[in-house]
Amino acid sequence: MRTQEYHFRLIVLLSVIVMLFCWFVIPSPSSSQALMMGVEQTKNIPKTAKEAIEQVVMANRILANEGVLDALGHVSIRNPENPKTFFQARSLSPLEVTKDDILEIDLDGAIVTKTTMRPYGERIIHAAILKARPDMNAVFHGHPASVIPFSVTNVPLRPVTHVGSFLYQGVPVYDDYEPGAGMLINTKQEGERIARHLGQYRVQLLRGHGCNIVAENLPQLVASAIYLRDNALIQLQSLMLSRDIKYLSPDEAKRAMEVALFNALPLDRMWGYWVARVKKNMPDMR
Amino acid sequence: MRTQEYHFRLIVLLSVIVMLFCWFVIPSPSSSQALMMGVEQTKNIPKTAKEAIEQVVMANRILANEGVLDALGHVSIRNPENPKTFFQARSLSPLEVTKDDILEIDLDGAIVTKTTMRPYGERIIHAAILKARPDMNAVFHGHPASVIPFSVTNVPLRPVTHVGSFLYQGVPVYDDYEPGAGMLINTKQEGERIARHLGQYRVQLLRGHGCNIVAENLPQLVASAIYLRDNALIQLQSLMLSRDIKYLSPDEAKRAMEVALFNALPLDRMWGYWVARVKKNMPDMR
Amino acid sequence: MRTQEYHFRLIVLLSVIVMLFCWFVIPSPSSSQALMMGVEQTKNIPKTAKEAIEQVVMANRILANEGVLDALGHVSIRNPENPKTFFQARSLSPLEVTKDDILEIDLDGAIVTKTTMRPYGERIIHAAILKARPDMNAVFHGHPASVIPFSVTNVPLRPVTHVGSFLYQGVPVYDDYEPGAGMLINTKQEGERIARHLGQYRVQLLRGHGCNIVAENLPQLVASAIYLRDNALIQLQSLMLSRDIKYLSPDEAKRAMEVALFNALPLDRMWGYWVARVKKNMPDMR
Amino acid sequence: MRTQEYHFRLIVLLSVIVMLFCWFVIPSPSSSQALMMGVEQTKNIPKTAKEAIEQVVMANRILANEGVLDALGHVSIRNPENPKTFFQARSLSPLEVTKDDILEIDLDGAIVTKTTMRPYGERIIHAAILKARPDMNAVFHGHPASVIPFSVTNVPLRPVTHVGSFLYQGVPVYDDYEPGAGMLINTKQEGERIARHLGQYRVQLLRGHGCNIVAENLPQLVASAIYLRDNALIQLQSLMLSRDIKYLSPDEAKRAMEVALFNALPLDRMWGYWVARVKKNMPDMR
Repeated sequence: MRTQEYHFRLIVLLSVIVMLFCWFVIPSPSSSQALMMGVEQTKNIPKTAKEAIEQVVMANRILANEGVLDALGHVSIRNPENPKTFFQARSLSPLEVTKDDILEIDLDGAIVTKTTMRPYGERIIHAAILKARPDMNAVFHGHPASVIPFSVTNVPLRPVTHVGSFLYQGVPVYDDYEPGAGMLINTKQEGERIARHLGQYRVQLLRGHGCNIVAENLPQLVASAIYLRDNALIQLQSLMLSRDIKYLSPDEAKRAMEVALFNALPLDRMWGYWVARVKKNMPDMR
Repeated sequence: MRTQEYHFRLIVLLSVIVMLFCWFVIPSPSSSQALMMGVEQTKNIPKTAKEAIEQVVMANRILANEGVLDALGHVSIRNPENPKTFFQARSLSPLEVTKDDILEIDLDGAIVTKTTMRPYGERIIHAAILKARPDMNAVFHGHPASVIPFSVTNVPLRPVTHVGSFLYQGVPVYDDYEPGAGMLINTKQEGERIARHLGQYRVQLLRGHGCNIVAENLPQLVASAIYLRDNALIQLQSLMLSRDIKYLSPDEAKRAMEVALFNALPLDRMWGYWVARVKKNMPDMR
Repeated sequence: MRTQEYHFRLIVLLSVIVMLFCWFVIPSPSSSQALMMGVEQTKNIPKTAKEAIEQVVMANRILANEGVLDALGHVSIRNPENPKTFFQARSLSPLEVTKDDILEIDLDGAIVTKTTMRPYGERIIHAAILKARPDMNAVFHGHPASVIPFSVTNVPLRPVTHVGSFLYQGVPVYDDYEPGAGMLINTKQEGERIARHLGQYRVQLLRGHGCNIVAENLPQLVASAIYLRDNALIQLQSLMLSRDIKYLSPDEAKRAMEVALFNALPLDRMWGYWVARVKKNMPDMR
Repeated sequence: MRTQEYHFRLIVLLSVIVMLFCWFVIPSPSSSQALMMGVEQTKNIPKTAKEAIEQVVMANRILANEGVLDALGHVSIRNPENPKTFFQARSLSPLEVTKDDILEIDLDGAIVTKTTMRPYGERIIHAAILKARPDMNAVFHGHPASVIPFSVTNVPLRPVTHVGSFLYQGVPVYDDYEPGAGMLINTKQEGERIARHLGQYRVQLLRGHGCNIVAENLPQLVASAIYLRDNALIQLQSLMLSRDIKYLSPDEAKRAMEVALFNALPLDRMWGYWVARVKKNMPDMR
């Protein structure tokens, strides 16, 4: 038994030494790494279908108000009460969307809501992506001008600023359109092809057309749509200065996304800002 | 008779097999090709002179509100009650046009309306084009900044995005100005020369001056004017990235125009959007 | 007497033939050359000091509202009642100028108005130019961003669009600053040097600083300031497409200025447009 | 005595000649050098903590209203009653900041105000710079799009226009981020490293992230932030015209900063302008 007791005491002693070492030598979270470690999830996540509908209306208005979407383009959110359906506006410009315009749609693109309202033809993109990506809950499809050049040339879109950090994986360009379909994506087959091409990326460009973005939640998605546009413009301007650009490295960008873009403290500040601007410009949203 | 009956039954059986094959194997229009086949004409087509006047007022306001026209430039619509006249504002900035400012003008540029109001000098362009193009009912003449570079260099304007798909035929550049006329087009002879140069195209540039656009109806025309500007800017930015651009092919672009730009579902959404923005910014249009 | 009578009748007959020829063969002004011949002066020319003060207030507001001037830059008009003085705001941003802020200043830059209000330091530019150019009645000094690149490189600013036609003479670049004066022009000597450098041009750039513009009247001046900015941007974009640009020829540009930019019909339309926008955005100007 | 009297009269005569020479030949300060000599400090300097809080609220609103800051970025002012603390908003977009959102923070980044409100993570930058630079009283941290290209290429940002004159020392680029920190600066160590890198400069860029600016007072700081953005854009456009640019020389730029940008007459005009625009757009600030 003495040997056992000896071993026991040795373990306790070593544990104390390790704990003291941790305490005094490793920098404490509160001094040097407080925020780095404090990666929090945004609180702006709807729990009910009703909240999700309200949030997707706000996302439509934000994207219109910030000039990311005009009459075309759309945004969707997975139903928190049923992961096999999502909410999206009827065929209407994002500027005009109210909660009465929101349809419930299933992951094959069929309209669940009993209504005569017409859906977007390209809802099929949202359905296919939400089906293929159970890890994601929000999809954007739009045509911001600044991203198109990166879809029609062989210059890849890359993160050049920390607000473009969510592009850390790179951005593939889809160019496998249905022949004769005029670049309009409205068959289930092409929707699935788009989703396969997206794979595990967060953003894909569509050649000569626009882009799709996915995110865990709508605040992330809106931030991604706005800063995708900005990163593309900044990258273009940088390339006009020099072809020798120091992009964010993949690791650096991934970390920047986690601590500086999608972390609750800055992300909730952004969401609050965009909402404040909507309320200022759109009296019916106050 | 047995052989006949046998043949009959065989035919019935084969027919059933073919029908079942069609039903289960070939994708049904409603699932996969619903929108591709459903190319519809916009409902926003005026039936009367009164409606045409109201619509051309709205088109003026939209083009001012979207920043496509400033004090200069103008838009016209053929009279639905008389294809030999058209409606256009008196010499006034599009921002300020009301229905009391609309003149009826014939296809030689003579003012039909009994009035002392002064017309635009360049109405002659609209008259000549509407005379030469019975297939078209609306004309735009303006000077969006982003198109000028393509009129003074030998770089052709081409469709680089699906919203520029209406440029599928290419864009000729007019440079046959009346010597000594200071680029102002106000003789009948030059109007006819412009119309001949336009030929069957939808858009022509005027060197160092601007562009003319034609369309079947005003919603198409307004969409063309707005997205002509945008396509030009995106093409310029693309060319700054690389001289090796994958443009829309002519077939692809023509199809995109039909199903994704001028099809009723998206076109009416655009028109609704532009009208909503006019109503927001111009109290007298509510 | 018969010979005389014969001659007389012959002359009458020939006169009638010539008149008929003119009537039927030469195109009448009303059909083909009406506007080309009808170069009219704008009616918006103040006759009294009071009207000039009101107009220079409006010009300040227009240039602020159109984004040509921010806090810096200024505009002046010669006193219609005394060609040896001019009107200009006290040191105040153009956005904020009212008629109570207008000073009368003589052509040496001395303040005629009895006041303790402080003038712009650079009023000396306006004084020197109005003294050197009795043919001109309005001066602009400002710093539109798009013109600066043409002042710091050896690429000359040239008319690339008909609204830039007033640049038909070319645009000299001043770079003879008082050593140690920090590019601020506030000595009478430098004012005179600037005016000599301007000579008979309508526009001069100041290296790394901005530009001066002169015009016969304020509507011309405001049009010149706005379209100088636009022409510079369009020229820059054109040069990004190609170094081989077809500029307006000097003759073509001069004529375009006369018939299409400074002619009463379009110029008054522009002025009306800019005033309408001021009234929309600035309640105190209604 | 005659010789003495002769000398005396000669001296008097020479003195009179010299005085007359000075009077007539050398330009008097009041005519030629009045403004050059009259470099005055702005009056807009808060004397009390209360005034400083009001001014930093206004600076937040100006920077939001002028589009320099969106949801991200922040501004601070040293406490006039205690140089060892400064005022800055809690984690909130500059657009929304009111005086109730201002925290007092010490030069180690600790929150002095008794509150549960959360501060910006990057307050550490402001704390470190204000500690290292007792000559400066205001700090800006933001991400204007036009400066990023100069942070990711080896093209240095330089003064190309007199409103960019405050860049006379050049602009160093920081690229010594904490590994694994995702470009977020929130450790005291990195704050100090940033401050050391800034040294005696007025502006530093952060690679792929943004910039820090320091100034003696808030009006200077706001002018610097706005014109840093503008100078970067103008420099980019200039470089697109030609790689051979005539920048402001360091001496010329320093002098231009003193007499034309940070001198009371123009600086107070700018501040008044930005305040007027805030009051127009933000009813709660009237």
